[in-house]
Amino acid sequence: MDELGRIAMLARVLGTARAGLEVGIGDDAAVLSTASLAGQRLVWTIDEQVEGVHFRRDLVSWRDVGWRATMAAASDVAAMGAAPWCTLAALVLPLDVDDAALEGIARGQREAADALGAPVVGGNLARGPALSLATTLLGTCERAVERRGARSGDGVWLAGRVGLAAAGLRALERRRGDEPALAAAVAAWRTPHALVTEGLAMGAVASAAVDVSDGLARDAGHLAEASEVSLVLDEAALVDDAALRDSARALDESAIDLALHGGEDYALVVTSARPIEGFRRIGEVRAGAGLILRGPWGERPLEPRGFDHFGG
Amino acid sequence: MDELGRIAMLARVLGTARAGLEVGIGDDAAVLSTASLAGQRLVWTIDEQVEGVHFRRDLVSWRDVGWRATMAAASDVAAMGAAPWCTLAALVLPLDVDDAALEGIARGQREAADALGAPVVGGNLARGPALSLATTLLGTCERAVERRGARSGDGVWLAGRVGLAAAGLRALERRRGDEPALAAAVAAWRTPHALVTEGLAMGAVASAAVDVSDGLARDAGHLAEASEVSLVLDEAALVDDAALRDSARALDESAIDLALHGGEDYALVVTSARPIEGFRRIGEVRAGAGLILRGPWGERPLEPRGFDHFGG
Repeated sequence: MDELGRIAMLARVLGTARAGLEVGIGDDAAVLSTASLAGQRLVWTIDEQVEGVHFRRDLVSWRDVGWRATMAAASDVAAMGAAPWCTLAALVLPLDVDDAALEGIARGQREAADALGAPVVGGNLARGPALSLATTLLGTCERAVERRGARSGDGVWLAGRVGLAAAGLRALERRRGDEPALAAAVAAWRTPHALVTEGLAMGAVASAAVDVSDGLARDAGHLAEASEVSLVLDEAALVDDAALRDSARALDESAIDLALHGGEDYALVVTSARPIEGFRRIGEVRAGAGLILRGPWGERPLEPRGFDHFGG
Repeated sequence: MDELGRIAMLARVLGTARAGLEVGIGDDAAVLSTASLAGQRLVWTIDEQVEGVHFRRDLVSWRDVGWRATMAAASDVAAMGAAPWCTLAALVLPLDVDDAALEGIARGQREAADALGAPVVGGNLARGPALSLATTLLGTCERAVERRGARSGDGVWLAGRVGLAAAGLRALERRRGDEPALAAAVAAWRTPHALVTEGLAMGAVASAAVDVSDGLARDAGHLAEASEVSLVLDEAALVDDAALRDSARALDESAIDLALHGGEDYALVVTSARPIEGFRRIGEVRAGAGLILRGPWGERPLEPRGFDHFGG
């Protein structure tokens, strides 16, 4: 198909109605009504997933490629306490991504967008040497929760899981993705879910929040730095996940290392003086700086080792 | 620099205030107030520029790379009759794009954003095999002008130039970019300007609009198809541009072919029953379908030959 044919196919797969959507796929830009935005804030993010960096074609389906890219972007919106509204996607397609592959990617985007309630209302197609998906999402909320704002004495709370997706990636890389003991881990990596409901639940009460894309230690470290506090994380709470422990055992990996440094789970870490529906307590905020891991052996400083795109 | 160091540098180069901006670079997402949006529509686009497809490193400066990507996205917003508001940018950086190159790109983005009044308020950095810049822009308007809506009897109006940027690219490819006769063409390709003022002027009166990124014939063809009309374009009006004619002569190219099929000028083509400040008349709308070129020799159907990413 030529460019127009591909855009028509994408409009067919992706096109759907959304409150406030006045012009969707096929014009120079999407047009959104602001009639329902009184008293709301807009929360706006962009994320990009690149073949060979964020996924390998032999480890995921085309549908997974579209799903994962959409959910990764939505996780940023969830981490601010906002509800996803609409999505745009810019795809760079090498010549060996054929029409069927593109349709598969779009179907994954559509399924994720349906799950999020944030349809893809426009985008861009370009040729290029490496497959990539840039996804931008608009969300809305009354109050946005930033990384700064954590206060000494707040609890540290986690929604979702940490470490399981990294276990799933290791299982796939070792060609052990079909083992029943690793099925939950593989699913966590292949089909992550942005925690929108949990994000909305914490929006009214959390003092600070971040999503875990590059590893808990790394992302919680960003929150600690922005808030100018120290976070104490409880080892026992972090590995209180049977699927994580089973996967770690099957892979001969350390469950706590996976939990602290594995990325791509898209969990939410928030600080709050009160418990929040859907979150479990994993530590507390202290005056100071940096992260501390607390175990039966006592406390030790925790250095981030999560994913850094530029090797830091 | 590691990822955090690069983000800090980008925040320093790009960071600036903007009405409605509550959270900028450095959190999970940008946060925008909607207090000033009553009675407005949001216009939202994403565009992506890929090395080797949209630019070659040996033909542009790093600043130009950032400037061009920002202006290309802004042109879509201008073509809807909207005022640019804020920008996000996702960069994929190969290992050989060093810190100085990244800062150069950011400086070009900043200069373009300043010219547009639409600061970069967030984004994403990723490693990857090919340099690319995905730029998403939000704009605002009371009325959005779509590609559909042209009516038989309307005039066809052009703001900006067509063909000159393509002449500039040819000059650079032939290593003739330093010739004085080609300076205007080279500048048109290297430093395009999204026609925001002209877009705002046409917003209240135009019946349809499109920006010319892939060639006049191709993009005007999109407008004709969406509006279910035919557009008649006057050859004499299209080449009524001394810089285009001089460049074409110096390059031994056809001025009308450059005007019809050369891309990346980011001109605006609109249809309107009335003249519009900043636009000149280049033809008229007729019942029917497709494009017609009218010259001293009569009329002939016009096929698009502009840039198609997938060879159609």
